[in-house]
Amino acid sequence: MAISRKLRMGMVGGGPGAFIGPVHRIAAEMDGKIQMVAGAFSQSAERSRQAGERFGIEPARAYADYRQMIESELKRPDPIDFVVITTPNHLHLPIALAAIEAGIPVMSDKPATATYPEAQALEAAVLKSGLPYGLTHTYAGYAMVREARHLCASGRLGKIRKVAVEYFQGWMTKAVETTGHKQAAWRADPAQNGQGGAIGDIGTHAFHLLEYISGLQVTAINATLRSVVEGRRLDDDCNAFLRLGNAAAGTLACSQVAAGELNEMRMRIYGETASIDWRQQDPNRLIVKNLDGPEEVHHAAAPYLGVDALAVARVPSGHPEGYLEAFAVLYREFADAMVAWQQGQANPLPATLPGIVAGVRGMRFIDRVIESNRKETWVEF
Amino acid sequence: MAISRKLRMGMVGGGPGAFIGPVHRIAAEMDGKIQMVAGAFSQSAERSRQAGERFGIEPARAYADYRQMIESELKRPDPIDFVVITTPNHLHLPIALAAIEAGIPVMSDKPATATYPEAQALEAAVLKSGLPYGLTHTYAGYAMVREARHLCASGRLGKIRKVAVEYFQGWMTKAVETTGHKQAAWRADPAQNGQGGAIGDIGTHAFHLLEYISGLQVTAINATLRSVVEGRRLDDDCNAFLRLGNAAAGTLACSQVAAGELNEMRMRIYGETASIDWRQQDPNRLIVKNLDGPEEVHHAAAPYLGVDALAVARVPSGHPEGYLEAFAVLYREFADAMVAWQQGQANPLPATLPGIVAGVRGMRFIDRVIESNRKETWVEF
Amino acid sequence: MAISRKLRMGMVGGGPGAFIGPVHRIAAEMDGKIQMVAGAFSQSAERSRQAGERFGIEPARAYADYRQMIESELKRPDPIDFVVITTPNHLHLPIALAAIEAGIPVMSDKPATATYPEAQALEAAVLKSGLPYGLTHTYAGYAMVREARHLCASGRLGKIRKVAVEYFQGWMTKAVETTGHKQAAWRADPAQNGQGGAIGDIGTHAFHLLEYISGLQVTAINATLRSVVEGRRLDDDCNAFLRLGNAAAGTLACSQVAAGELNEMRMRIYGETASIDWRQQDPNRLIVKNLDGPEEVHHAAAPYLGVDALAVARVPSGHPEGYLEAFAVLYREFADAMVAWQQGQANPLPATLPGIVAGVRGMRFIDRVIESNRKETWVEF
Amino acid sequence: MAISRKLRMGMVGGGPGAFIGPVHRIAAEMDGKIQMVAGAFSQSAERSRQAGERFGIEPARAYADYRQMIESELKRPDPIDFVVITTPNHLHLPIALAAIEAGIPVMSDKPATATYPEAQALEAAVLKSGLPYGLTHTYAGYAMVREARHLCASGRLGKIRKVAVEYFQGWMTKAVETTGHKQAAWRADPAQNGQGGAIGDIGTHAFHLLEYISGLQVTAINATLRSVVEGRRLDDDCNAFLRLGNAAAGTLACSQVAAGELNEMRMRIYGETASIDWRQQDPNRLIVKNLDGPEEVHHAAAPYLGVDALAVARVPSGHPEGYLEAFAVLYREFADAMVAWQQGQANPLPATLPGIVAGVRGMRFIDRVIESNRKETWVEF
Repeated sequence: MAISRKLRMGMVGGGPGAFIGPVHRIAAEMDGKIQMVAGAFSQSAERSRQAGERFGIEPARAYADYRQMIESELKRPDPIDFVVITTPNHLHLPIALAAIEAGIPVMSDKPATATYPEAQALEAAVLKSGLPYGLTHTYAGYAMVREARHLCASGRLGKIRKVAVEYFQGWMTKAVETTGHKQAAWRADPAQNGQGGAIGDIGTHAFHLLEYISGLQVTAINATLRSVVEGRRLDDDCNAFLRLGNAAAGTLACSQVAAGELNEMRMRIYGETASIDWRQQDPNRLIVKNLDGPEEVHHAAAPYLGVDALAVARVPSGHPEGYLEAFAVLYREFADAMVAWQQGQANPLPATLPGIVAGVRGMRFIDRVIESNRKETWVEF
Repeated sequence: MAISRKLRMGMVGGGPGAFIGPVHRIAAEMDGKIQMVAGAFSQSAERSRQAGERFGIEPARAYADYRQMIESELKRPDPIDFVVITTPNHLHLPIALAAIEAGIPVMSDKPATATYPEAQALEAAVLKSGLPYGLTHTYAGYAMVREARHLCASGRLGKIRKVAVEYFQGWMTKAVETTGHKQAAWRADPAQNGQGGAIGDIGTHAFHLLEYISGLQVTAINATLRSVVEGRRLDDDCNAFLRLGNAAAGTLACSQVAAGELNEMRMRIYGETASIDWRQQDPNRLIVKNLDGPEEVHHAAAPYLGVDALAVARVPSGHPEGYLEAFAVLYREFADAMVAWQQGQANPLPATLPGIVAGVRGMRFIDRVIESNRKETWVEF
Repeated sequence: MAISRKLRMGMVGGGPGAFIGPVHRIAAEMDGKIQMVAGAFSQSAERSRQAGERFGIEPARAYADYRQMIESELKRPDPIDFVVITTPNHLHLPIALAAIEAGIPVMSDKPATATYPEAQALEAAVLKSGLPYGLTHTYAGYAMVREARHLCASGRLGKIRKVAVEYFQGWMTKAVETTGHKQAAWRADPAQNGQGGAIGDIGTHAFHLLEYISGLQVTAINATLRSVVEGRRLDDDCNAFLRLGNAAAGTLACSQVAAGELNEMRMRIYGETASIDWRQQDPNRLIVKNLDGPEEVHHAAAPYLGVDALAVARVPSGHPEGYLEAFAVLYREFADAMVAWQQGQANPLPATLPGIVAGVRGMRFIDRVIESNRKETWVEF
Repeated sequence: MAISRKLRMGMVGGGPGAFIGPVHRIAAEMDGKIQMVAGAFSQSAERSRQAGERFGIEPARAYADYRQMIESELKRPDPIDFVVITTPNHLHLPIALAAIEAGIPVMSDKPATATYPEAQALEAAVLKSGLPYGLTHTYAGYAMVREARHLCASGRLGKIRKVAVEYFQGWMTKAVETTGHKQAAWRADPAQNGQGGAIGDIGTHAFHLLEYISGLQVTAINATLRSVVEGRRLDDDCNAFLRLGNAAAGTLACSQVAAGELNEMRMRIYGETASIDWRQQDPNRLIVKNLDGPEEVHHAAAPYLGVDALAVARVPSGHPEGYLEAFAVLYREFADAMVAWQQGQANPLPATLPGIVAGVRGMRFIDRVIESNRKETWVEF
């Protein structure tokens, strides 16, 4: 069945200098199911208009305020179908609530909110509204992450015993937040970012992906946080022990002061008979190490993969897909769910698409890490 | 300065079951400068309409014939700005000529035509028309290919002495063309594909990239062709010695019967002081091996890269870009050139975007390889 | 100056079925400075004789008891110059003490002893005797470990901030100690092995190498231990947070139930301006990741390396050296020190050769990990 | 059954400054079956004595002439059991003939001789004598080369169709032979080296390994040679097309002017159902790429390997073995064959150990490459 028309997306955030706004635009539109038609790109009307022009948005739909966007769009014959939130974290909740109150579904950059209580509030609102709410934990869109998830669920590894998750970056090795680096500046400011530094920015990605792939939930954490760079107000380096369901255990490490690392997220999950190893920087390969028998390298789009991985492949094996394509997978799933929802289906989001539940767990993760670090021992999740 | 509107693209080819048509659509639209609005997706009206529906094209603009598309579109107030050709090779020339005769610029999948004389005819037509003509040698759009090209031009390697180019696939290891595999079927048919099998399908990519990166031209070839699979009418395996300008020499190997290989294109270029090594399946890294001093790994989007590589980065270093993004780089450059041309600029295509000259050289390459194979010795290029 | 004769080595342990005994023999003799001439290979006279025969030892010098070996050898005109200990851990101390009492230098497999108090006792005896005592922390003999150590000392990384050390094996994923696996059986028995399971067997290697390379000392540990395999009496999986001197911190993880891993020891050390990354399974390459500038791969035996790394290279760059060669480096250094000592030099052991101080720290490490695990929080080292 | 005593080896070559002589000594002695006891290390008596001293050889057995060594040793009660030849190539034949005439078995560095007719002469002498003659094509000793050979023979790849062999070095990128580099000097001199430059030094290794692994023989060659460095009298860069038995074909490339390459020998062999990929610089892994199913990485010493690979493993999987261990495998096989021969067994050399037949084929290879290059087309092998 064909989609009769493209879904119309309105963006909040993504103004001049933003990194993630344009990424959302490309990802949303990649599979031909969504078109960005409006935006509150900046709180400055002039800058919002400039951004809109660059995005090819008509000037009238480039708003200076997200409330205004919602109000104005609802009056149009061709209003936005959903809002995407790409602002600094402290604005996630009010924007999401405003959209939900107006009956508009939401796609949100992560983390869901700036604090754990905010996330709980948002969850309540989302559940009450019945509106689709998606959270762009980008890495969940990679084909080989889907394959990893499938292998864990299928029993291919045997019972899972051990996990080793890391997410290392080096870009905050110096005090870049003090030198005009826009992305660093808001992330280093607790008021805009929330209480989690590296753990919020990238630790939540790693945490989500661990639960997403393994199918296990973290039940206790023992974490240690540091702010390595002098004067930095939030953590930039974290190591955590984890206990998970079903007697599994392991580690989660994240850092933004790992000099020389780019965006090194790696997931290793060890079962009784095999283990998997996936690196975001080499995303089209999934390594399966067998206790008995040769190591295997599984390639994206290869016919021996499971249906979930094959469902998201756009090009033949050997033609690399990357970060934008992973992002676009989430949008494609959200678009399909939107259409189903518009046609009356309740709870249309597929299990493969992160939503508010993942959002709440992510904020809980930050909360628990901070608490554990304070106590210098284990805390229940 | 903003682009006032998206360019309108009309596709020929890309009907149900096609691989490369949808890829062109994604690539063309990725950077927000182009929108596909029409197409002659299939010679069956019904199948063309179906394909158009899937692409979100209005039924009236899903044509069954490219001539009809050109004619009808030219009568519209919002006609297509350019045609993209994604058909089997034997149709490339007539479609391109029809567009050019109608004054419409062309973006074409490679190879430019089915034969070398056809390519010469097309070159004459393109040059006479003054119309923009782009050729999607996709790999030229990768950031690290741009960096490799920059390093060669900059003298970083010293004088180039030796090249080793390979492009190995395994997907035609069996006689897949006899078992209903659409991509294989037309590629294995000389009437649709032209005289070059593997050398046409992938050898031309390797040949183009070699000249594109090294800045050298091939001056003589000694090639040996095989049709390894019984009953196959075209070559599926080729090895060639090359002589290049400036006393360089080397090899180009391509195969579609290299069992277990996916899409292994690798370029190694050796100079007097250093060499470079790039693999399409690991596209965001360029290895620089120094005669004196440690080996280096250059990463896409890193600040130490040259302007050409940085110009095409969409996301920060460590966030992989892939095949679709490389493809989209060519479309972005074509779009920018189109706008300049519409504003009256002559010869607007940048040197980084492959065009008709590359197309003619590619067809000449096929011709020379076949001739050399026949003679079992060297032939001038 | 030439060595006038080969040093004569007597081995304790290494009987039929032993893994590490033959390795010591190869390593000791590789550089032509040592010859194994005697051994107490087994507590069974017959088995000791068999082992001796396989080693090419004359029957009279294949003893059934290390005390007998020491006594008999001392009566010969050509007695052993030193003893090497390759038994299960609980015998390390009595053998070492017997040799020392007899005035014979000792080369010992690690760990130095079975318990921390034993190590302190041994340290006292070694220091009092003035005899050379070497400890075969094999990995310290790799050329690129020497280079890593040099880079840390040289300031190449800037101030060290963060370490991430891991040592993962999978060979004890099943309860192999119950199925006749000799290596597993004694390692799983606290009486023969001491209190550290994975932390003793491989954790001490990782701990030693971390201090050896970084030049920093661990000052506090927060560790968590598990015995994942049911019925196993010692730990088989450990994760530890570390605090080190100079405000550095990090992690050390080791496991013998990481299904599918072979012998994956990896050291990453992050400084303010660069980091290093070394894997034992790819030992001839050292990766240097710069905060600013391309990643570098340093190759063993390359002329740009420091003197310590070049001093231990036996073959040209590109010719892999491995585990046995690393082992042999320690023996070569021990042999040179032996000669110096025999010529009257006090404290002849070079700083690059692990000795009793490293041995005591290793046993302290086990002790502290167990204590921390018990308390579920940090302990001072 | 135990070996009653170590075999006694006498070396020709290996004097001060030599690279390969000490390598032979380590390799020969590694497995405890051979001891070097004599040598004609240099044609200078003083330098031979110095070398002998460094090797721990008694002065009386450090000869200045190989004829003198043979004559004197034969008069001793404990004479050498065999001669090893490690000189420049032009001396290989006379030394081997002298030993054979004296009834002494020979282990020779490769190539067997300096010219093809010499090799034929040597073959006749060896066959007539019935003496063991081994040729140290080192790479044949790697465990994973043995595994690759096994997989080809077992049919794991299906019928072999295509090979791609390369051996790239960069150390002769500059005219090092003119600057006092001893290894380069004799290799660049046709009088000492023979007519093959890179093809003799490293091309013969690649050629041997190809036939050794694949089990196929080269039947025709089309090669092109260059002397890239100005003034160099021998080839330093070669590309060759090959035809092999059973309708297989492929390429062999070697170069010593591939700037930045260390010792990059790589063998890829493609069959109808799978292919193998092995790199000397990563020798403990063998990659098996399947036409259908995931890529596999086979690790040295893993239990799933064939008997030939397991027979040569000295340490557990994950503990890297390298170039010296591969070399030592050949010596171990030679030693076992020597013992069998001394006990009266005819033709004791195992099929896994390269001998005079391989030596003749290697010299034939050089001859054919030069002829093909001269004719610029194919020649029969």
